Amino acid sequence: MKRFSFNQITAKFWDLEDMVAGCVEAGVDKVALWREPVAEYGLDRSAGLVRDAGLTVTSLCRSGFFQAPDWFDDNRRAIDEAHALDTKVLVLVSGGLPGGSKDLAGARQHVADAIGRLVPHAAAAGVTLAVEPLHPMYAADRCVISTWDQALAIAEQHPVGQVGVTVDTYHLWWDDTVLDKIARAGDRIAIYQLADWATPLPAGVLTGRALPGDGVIDMRPFHDAVAKAGYTGPIEVEVMNDALWERPGREVLAATIDGYQGCF
Amino acid sequence: MKRFSFNQITAKFWDLEDMVAGCVEAGVDKVALWREPVAEYGLDRSAGLVRDAGLTVTSLCRSGFFQAPDWFDDNRRAIDEAHALDTKVLVLVSGGLPGGSKDLAGARQHVADAIGRLVPHAAAAGVTLAVEPLHPMYAADRCVISTWDQALAIAEQHPVGQVGVTVDTYHLWWDDTVLDKIARAGDRIAIYQLADWATPLPAGVLTGRALPGDGVIDMRPFHDAVAKAGYTGPIEVEVMNDALWERPGREVLAATIDGYQGCF
Repeated sequence: MKRFSFNQITAKFWDLEDMVAGCVEAGVDKVALWREPVAEYGLDRSAGLVRDAGLTVTSLCRSGFFQAPDWFDDNRRAIDEAHALDTKVLVLVSGGLPGGSKDLAGARQHVADAIGRLVPHAAAAGVTLAVEPLHPMYAADRCVISTWDQALAIAEQHPVGQVGVTVDTYHLWWDDTVLDKIARAGDRIAIYQLADWATPLPAGVLTGRALPGDGVIDMRPFHDAVAKAGYTGPIEVEVMNDALWERPGREVLAATIDGYQGCF
Repeated sequence: MKRFSFNQITAKFWDLEDMVAGCVEAGVDKVALWREPVAEYGLDRSAGLVRDAGLTVTSLCRSGFFQAPDWFDDNRRAIDEAHALDTKVLVLVSGGLPGGSKDLAGARQHVADAIGRLVPHAAAAGVTLAVEPLHPMYAADRCVISTWDQALAIAEQHPVGQVGVTVDTYHLWWDDTVLDKIARAGDRIAIYQLADWATPLPAGVLTGRALPGDGVIDMRPFHDAVAKAGYTGPIEVEVMNDALWERPGREVLAATIDGYQGCF
């Protein structure tokens, strides 16, 4: 449990104060926070709440969405929020194609350029931009960065520590080349997240993820690859699941801890 | 229209006799057939029906599903059916993980081995086994062969003409490396299929495909890559879409022809 971090989205409807109290009670000392509930509770208040509870914020989820007109200002704000929460990692989900566009290659190039423009601000804030490749099923409408190779190629245009990659088992498990690449990624791994793959996928394919152990992903080779790369940081469980979200927060946390422990 | 082939699944509920008549009427001289409706109408009857109408069968869809206990016998039957229908191409969808298994690499190896065991029978029948990489969102439950590279690696273990690859825009469009690879694939392209990507995806993610032009895929680079490889064969439109399936067959065929012509 030393490396376990509870990603807030896993209990989407759990009030922030209650979540912090629930984590402390369960002996969990790391959380990943999401921008929307943090903004709702107040940024400084959220930062104070987790700090006073002795919790470490392992990442802030999430920024990116570079097809939005205000992407530059919004991502700079997200970097400031990460800094205020004293987390070193800001997860970037690139966003999909601009409305009406079929230019996937162009959208991908724009993401690389946009991240380059954010690096100075992130570096000054001591925040690593953690590019997250999302499963190819999101390429049109959520994230044009679909593979490990694409995310790493963007990260490698910048110094280590300034831009890295998010390893999320849910998004990468299908790729027969990914484990070797992760094992060679060294300091480019910014954060490691677990979620399991379950079928059938629900409409919209966003909220059908499973707790580790409840799907078909063999987690051990991922653990091994990440370890081989030298990554010793936190391991978040980040699951979006409608049925899970209907349960009380404490139950969700307990089930998440069970799933996490079961896959080690 | 010289290369256009109407894939039967695009009008799933159109009676075979009506479909053949509708194609002839519309000046379409190529169709791709599916095993289930062919079996229902009778194999020899189906073969006679399309032959008498002067139609060419561009492929038989589909066999594979190598996790099924009877995969060997069933795939040999499918080869015989392709032969009886006088088509040169049998599309293979590999099937997903065996029940309860998390061994994706093992399942993939089994597919390669299984295809190797089918090659002699297929070669004797003059049928090319067309390995189809399906979108990675199907890796668990429908097709463990998720990428161009995986399908081509299997094909290349055998002589050209015996095992090839199915190029389907729907399954490959997200892959930023695929166009160059297709352009270099030469005679390994066994069949070329068009379907477009639309979101949001429906539950089960099987029946939300769009007619060419109705989604976000830029078809022209695919046409160019396939042409560069030297492929001059038929171009099937194969779309599974619940809303389309509710429409009368003749309407579906007309809309399919429109979509096809619009993307050239």
